[in-house]
Amino acid sequence: MILSPVQYENGILQILDQTVLPWEERYLTLKTKEDVWDAIHSLKVRGAPAIGIAAWFGLFMLAKSINARGPVDFAKQFHELKEYLATSRPTAVNLFWAMDRMEKSLSKTLVALAEPPSKVWETIQPLVIERLYQEAEAIRSEDEAACKAMGEYGLSLLKPGMGLLTHCNAGTIATARYGTSLAPIYLGHERGYNFKVYAGETRPLMQGARLTSWELHKAGIDVTLICDNMASMVMKNGWVDAVLVGCDRMAANGDGANKIGTSGLAILAKEYGIPFYMFVPTSTIDLTTKAGEDIFVECRPGEEVTNKWFEKEMAPKGVPVYNPAFDVTDHRYITAVITEKGIVRPPFEQGLADLFKDGHVNGLVK
Amino acid sequence: MILSPVQYENGILQILDQTVLPWEERYLTLKTKEDVWDAIHSLKVRGAPAIGIAAWFGLFMLAKSINARGPVDFAKQFHELKEYLATSRPTAVNLFWAMDRMEKSLSKTLVALAEPPSKVWETIQPLVIERLYQEAEAIRSEDEAACKAMGEYGLSLLKPGMGLLTHCNAGTIATARYGTSLAPIYLGHERGYNFKVYAGETRPLMQGARLTSWELHKAGIDVTLICDNMASMVMKNGWVDAVLVGCDRMAANGDGANKIGTSGLAILAKEYGIPFYMFVPTSTIDLTTKAGEDIFVECRPGEEVTNKWFEKEMAPKGVPVYNPAFDVTDHRYITAVITEKGIVRPPFEQGLADLFKDGHVNGLVK
Repeated sequence: MILSPVQYENGILQILDQTVLPWEERYLTLKTKEDVWDAIHSLKVRGAPAIGIAAWFGLFMLAKSINARGPVDFAKQFHELKEYLATSRPTAVNLFWAMDRMEKSLSKTLVALAEPPSKVWETIQPLVIERLYQEAEAIRSEDEAACKAMGEYGLSLLKPGMGLLTHCNAGTIATARYGTSLAPIYLGHERGYNFKVYAGETRPLMQGARLTSWELHKAGIDVTLICDNMASMVMKNGWVDAVLVGCDRMAANGDGANKIGTSGLAILAKEYGIPFYMFVPTSTIDLTTKAGEDIFVECRPGEEVTNKWFEKEMAPKGVPVYNPAFDVTDHRYITAVITEKGIVRPPFEQGLADLFKDGHVNGLVK
Repeated sequence: MILSPVQYENGILQILDQTVLPWEERYLTLKTKEDVWDAIHSLKVRGAPAIGIAAWFGLFMLAKSINARGPVDFAKQFHELKEYLATSRPTAVNLFWAMDRMEKSLSKTLVALAEPPSKVWETIQPLVIERLYQEAEAIRSEDEAACKAMGEYGLSLLKPGMGLLTHCNAGTIATARYGTSLAPIYLGHERGYNFKVYAGETRPLMQGARLTSWELHKAGIDVTLICDNMASMVMKNGWVDAVLVGCDRMAANGDGANKIGTSGLAILAKEYGIPFYMFVPTSTIDLTTKAGEDIFVECRPGEEVTNKWFEKEMAPKGVPVYNPAFDVTDHRYITAVITEKGIVRPPFEQGLADLFKDGHVNGLVK
């Protein structure tokens, strides 16, 4: 059984609260715009695709309750809802384009349905709502299909019985389903591949310990938890046949930003002769960013390192802490980039550009 | 001001309780053999040299209270004390040879002083005790001198203003004074070198956060705490000019076992073109061990990774944890080995053997 981080059924929007994992498996019902805003803001739902899905279904659910005088008023109120939700996580680019896509779809629907203007709005609104639902569901199933495609491409690089190392959580609870870097692990599990997975705990936020080991263990997959600094030893022991990681943003030259610690794993993998695979939905590839040095890396509060999760502060007061949330893995260390459109191997610049030959907008393949 | 982990003054033996750092700076007075045993057993005193010093002064202090009928009885009771303390940490090789050295010294003293046997024991015992004190103090100051020598050799490799990365704690509280890998940092600080130190927190036991950042910060040295998985980024930022680490055991070919995570740092340093220096007292070099693969690495309970320090268990029950305490850094990644007798550069096999040309016993230079 594979869990879903966002569920919309029978008019009820629920999200799996990831802040209480692995201690509690708690689904929260989101009813108001404040509920949706808070779920995204406080990281109860996390992972770019999962945030997008929560926002889409949230917008749809809230749109159902709009009391509008007509199509223009409806569009205005929808826009206000969108702008409000956009403030929940100001750095989540994915959230913005996800909601923009909903709004563009709404505009088209309104133009098509609300002509001539003499039509009675009360008869149109249900159709508009229905279209919004279809759009949200379409995006959700596109994401699921993209994850599954990445899983199939990824699996083609793996063999039964392999040892696999992963970092952070790019799993089913960060996406619509299957995850990105964990997708081949789930697909392989369905097909009896008997992978042996090593999950780095991923300091300081412990996504590997709290989320990845939780979801893989729950799915019945053989997963062993390690501290991040044990990766070199696990590789030296000969236990790792491939490293699978996600990606938050990839530049045109193949440099990829991902959770802090990823770049070190890539260098170790290269040194030990282990392939390093980065799972990158094309929506994450930004051809307008030339190279890794152009990617801004956010630094987070030092308290996350010294205080969060702990009974007592782990370092003396007054000691500065450096806490970058991401690092950039140089493309030299990446064996292959796995996208939903196929596997890209070096030289990445050409291969990545080729993915977009049929046109893309804001990094999103349409 | 540099702290001492073991103090013996005016007949009172005190140790700095490292299990409550950095939250409390608590010195414990050790009065009975059970006190000494417990301080070593429960890691209140840690670091091979510091354990040795605690055992030496502990033995001396306990010897003062021996009520003996004569030299043979005294030697017998001393031996029993030694055997008892040796059970406090059965894997601490350093502890055994430290106490053996005290016992050998005692034997010589007894032979010299207790002849002819007709001498009155009451007049001899104070002299025997005095000799034991001199021996304990000699070993302590030898260790301090060795650390200082390593510091001087290490400092000769560094320049003012450099950024230095260290791991775990091979500092003043693990030795008589100065530490091993931190010794050049303390000496440099005394001479206005203005180093910028990065301390890896060192999962799972957090020695970097709790101990290294504490002792360096207390000494007024500029230290920044990072998670272990941030080392690659800190190096890529150009902030690290040298990596300084300690060593628990070095094989004849230069492969060195140290706290888990060290081998990964060495590989990263090589990739980024940063020198990697291992600080290795000659007592830690074991020429009878040919290479790193012959060094046994102890695995510790998984609960250290998932439960220790945390408010709640960080991974679901039933998830296996791999928790090796050490890893072995291949000599290929070590730029130089810094000992108290000088700096050894590759090829290490010859250079390390040369250190022992004037004879050694059980790895201890006499």
